[in-house]
Amino acid sequence: MVIKEIQIKTSARNDLIDITPLIEKVVTEAGISQGICVLFVPHTTAAVTINENADPSVKVDIIASLNMLAPSGNHYQHHEGNADAHIKASLIGPSECILVQGGRLFLGTWQGIFFCEFDGPRTRKICVKLI
Amino acid sequence: MVIKEIQIKTSARNDLIDITPLIEKVVTEAGISQGICVLFVPHTTAAVTINENADPSVKVDIIASLNMLAPSGNHYQHHEGNADAHIKASLIGPSECILVQGGRLFLGTWQGIFFCEFDGPRTRKICVKLI
Amino acid sequence: MVIKEIQIKTSARNDLIDITPLIEKVVTEAGISQGICVLFVPHTTAAVTINENADPSVKVDIIASLNMLAPSGNHYQHHEGNADAHIKASLIGPSECILVQGGRLFLGTWQGIFFCEFDGPRTRKICVKLI
Repeated sequence: MVIKEIQIKTSARNDLIDITPLIEKVVTEAGISQGICVLFVPHTTAAVTINENADPSVKVDIIASLNMLAPSGNHYQHHEGNADAHIKASLIGPSECILVQGGRLFLGTWQGIFFCEFDGPRTRKICVKLI
Repeated sequence: MVIKEIQIKTSARNDLIDITPLIEKVVTEAGISQGICVLFVPHTTAAVTINENADPSVKVDIIASLNMLAPSGNHYQHHEGNADAHIKASLIGPSECILVQGGRLFLGTWQGIFFCEFDGPRTRKICVKLI
Repeated sequence: MVIKEIQIKTSARNDLIDITPLIEKVVTEAGISQGICVLFVPHTTAAVTINENADPSVKVDIIASLNMLAPSGNHYQHHEGNADAHIKASLIGPSECILVQGGRLFLGTWQGIFFCEFDGPRTRKICVKLI
């Protein structure tokens, strides 16, 4: 299977967007019954994480926490105003490996997949490869 | 090979548990000689990392450091009292890809695989898939 | 394909080294047209990340930021003087999964692969496996 690219529109500078249904759809359409689903974000100011998608306040806390760990501002060497976004991207990371079983993503009960925008709003993409 | 689920009992709120022998056993029993071993934690307040398992003080430092980066407390939006655990889970991440060669995990001399509990004690699991 | 080990000489205690051409060469020489490229760092005080390789100040900011999150010093339990390096290694992580398409690494325009040294200078290695 070739790489599937999914487009994502983000609406804030920092944003966590639940993309679980989009990734699930790729798995279903590929008709794969078991294997792994590799997600890769081809950007340097965005990332992908897996966390709780039941209570939306969890993503608010994650964003607030990352803003404390890498505050926005002009005290960085990189002068494009988004150094904090680059740092957050490396802390969270651009890839995830998710297991596939019975034709579905093998996620825990409370887990959702979140595209992490750190320098939006923008039109982004995430790449999906099934093995 | 289907997904192998390993049960882990944790004994503290924050805990790093060396699960290297458990994962090594899955690889040995599967009889796979080379490939990759994908680990996936199906929880939103736990994670998996790889670090030194020679000196147990390393894991104490990692836990103390994460407690500083995401302090426990009630200053979060998420009101279940474990927002810090969700943040730590995203900082460390739920998956790792480890190489397999000669029928064994291809780890560095000092590396061990640690299940990271951030909201214990609980009975948890980690999923293993060999490719 | 067996695991390919690449040697890296680092020149500072904290250093991010662009290894994109080295990994690209492994993919080209293997003659693989599509799949995934798994990178694994077999050290406990080093890691691998993906970030911007156009402006070298980005890596300066990442290093400075990690130094704030895990300051060097003797206030740790681990008494080898490199506890900060172990913490940074777990924050960034030892592995990455990169997609391969058309015989090349499928990276975003601004993305480069960086070996992260946190306790150098040393001679290190990174392991590459193509699936």
